[in-house]
Amino acid sequence: MRQNVLFTNNVSEALGEALQRLNPNRVFVLVDTHTARLVLPHMSLEARPIVIEAGDDHKSVEALMTVWHALQEGGATRSSVLVNVGGGMVTDLGGMAAATFKRGIRFVNVPTTLLGAVDAAVGGKTGVNFGGLKNEVGAFAMATDVVVSTRFFATLPPQELWSGYAEMLKHAMLTGEAPLRALLNFDPTQDPERLLDLLRDSVQVKRRIVEQDPLEKGLRKALNLGHTVGHAFESLALQRGKPIPHGYAVAWGLVVETVLSHMECGFPSLLLHELAGYVLSHYGTFAITCDDYPQLIALMRHDKKSERGEINCSLLEECGQVRLNCSIEPETMETALDIYRDLFRI
Amino acid sequence: MRQNVLFTNNVSEALGEALQRLNPNRVFVLVDTHTARLVLPHMSLEARPIVIEAGDDHKSVEALMTVWHALQEGGATRSSVLVNVGGGMVTDLGGMAAATFKRGIRFVNVPTTLLGAVDAAVGGKTGVNFGGLKNEVGAFAMATDVVVSTRFFATLPPQELWSGYAEMLKHAMLTGEAPLRALLNFDPTQDPERLLDLLRDSVQVKRRIVEQDPLEKGLRKALNLGHTVGHAFESLALQRGKPIPHGYAVAWGLVVETVLSHMECGFPSLLLHELAGYVLSHYGTFAITCDDYPQLIALMRHDKKSERGEINCSLLEECGQVRLNCSIEPETMETALDIYRDLFRI
Repeated sequence: MRQNVLFTNNVSEALGEALQRLNPNRVFVLVDTHTARLVLPHMSLEARPIVIEAGDDHKSVEALMTVWHALQEGGATRSSVLVNVGGGMVTDLGGMAAATFKRGIRFVNVPTTLLGAVDAAVGGKTGVNFGGLKNEVGAFAMATDVVVSTRFFATLPPQELWSGYAEMLKHAMLTGEAPLRALLNFDPTQDPERLLDLLRDSVQVKRRIVEQDPLEKGLRKALNLGHTVGHAFESLALQRGKPIPHGYAVAWGLVVETVLSHMECGFPSLLLHELAGYVLSHYGTFAITCDDYPQLIALMRHDKKSERGEINCSLLEECGQVRLNCSIEPETMETALDIYRDLFRI
Repeated sequence: MRQNVLFTNNVSEALGEALQRLNPNRVFVLVDTHTARLVLPHMSLEARPIVIEAGDDHKSVEALMTVWHALQEGGATRSSVLVNVGGGMVTDLGGMAAATFKRGIRFVNVPTTLLGAVDAAVGGKTGVNFGGLKNEVGAFAMATDVVVSTRFFATLPPQELWSGYAEMLKHAMLTGEAPLRALLNFDPTQDPERLLDLLRDSVQVKRRIVEQDPLEKGLRKALNLGHTVGHAFESLALQRGKPIPHGYAVAWGLVVETVLSHMECGFPSLLLHELAGYVLSHYGTFAITCDDYPQLIALMRHDKKSERGEINCSLLEECGQVRLNCSIEPETMETALDIYRDLFRI
């Protein structure tokens, strides 16, 4: 199914046009307690609101049942539309609710965070957490329309912006050197209109990859760049009782995996240093010592993308040239972590 | 996705071959308390069992969570397979669990009731009841393989067989006069091998229709034959506190809608009488008076297939010639119900 992705800061108009085309008998809007307060009042949208608690803790089957119940109570049919307004938690959960209510009703996503816009709002992955695991139950289902804007980002702390920007760095690296340099010469907290342009390019990268591999059989693994190490950092931080934002973990993971790309595939050293400098100055450092290596490597071996307990990464020969399914020896990973610590003066 | 449907009374061998081809890392088998006791011990299947309570009351989100939890506990991954062994309740619920666990793992259906074999085990509809409505949440997802046999039917009361046979009558009527006469000259309680042959033809009818219209946009409405009136009879019986089996309601509904087909589309009178005679002698009667007409007509107007409160039926010009979306006037329906009462001497 084709998905319409619109980039505009006139959200109400774009949404109005999308709904006119979809011609639903009833419109519902899913928000969390944050977007109900900060975003919904600024949109002109005639729809029955469904409000859920904010936060990943509430990305649950219980919240899913709340949404199903509200759809049922509101008389939703297969001709109705659900509009999801919020971060990745709202679009993932709302997408899953819509994909399964009466075996599937149409839904529209209006991401309100940069991470949501760049990552979660396109691509057809929906889901909720279950039994302590993230996105353990879900469905592949595409929003018919996605309205991407940067106008709600100012309602969020700058950390949220930087978190999403890490995924944009990743998309640029999967595309070419020029797109990467454009991002390294920009500060996303400064200019929302320019950010919208850069975001348009970034989302197109993901769309192209997802369209070629909707069910994650091969090429989509490219999107895993930075995430094997990033997830390990994120888990280690969680075990230390000091969680770090996902995007920050990805930014540091991108640096380590670019080091690996240099070591294993000849990724150019100069660009590696530019990336590391940018990440250091805007994201700071994630402090590790060589005592953390065994635990980090154990975490990487158990990453859900890895098979048979080996460390699996997507690496780059250069920007835009991906090598999927690289198996990394533990000693090689340790060397890459050493170099990361050198670059970040840890 | 192609679906392999195998008709055989050597279930263990067929299942073994299917699993060899699917090459899963782990196999799980979903059964209810009935099939755990009566069927599973007679199958040679190495799989981790997941047992749920029997009965439509347990076709719930709670039972779905039980299955997800068991898959998670048992270390299921996207390379695992869930085998659903049971009636329509087990295959619907197990299909939904598989379709949503980690955004979709493969599943195999082994229907153990005639209704399950003929209706629920192919076609890609999965789901559970929610908020008092049947199949309110679900997904379209195809079993990779369906193993259809008649060998477990003897573990069930004959009423279950007749219930499923009504759907076979419907499929035959959608195909042609010869297939219908073959069924009207047969007693499904007598010969399981012959029944398997007739079942093969019947399931192919549904498969053909579903393949042409997987998402129920048009042609699939043909499968609604007998169900507008059948559902109304089923609901009326429920309101009277004397529920009737779904298939029995369909059998009587088929007679009324064949009367309508005769009145509105010239369906041949002789075949109508033969059908009515067969249904009367094997299903008995569903007793109604003209005092029940207003309520029955109100129920038909609220059928989920109807739009804008009119009575909508799929009718037949002759066997195999379907006319979709026939709008029926209440007075015409009353006349058809009068004729049904005459035919059944009520």
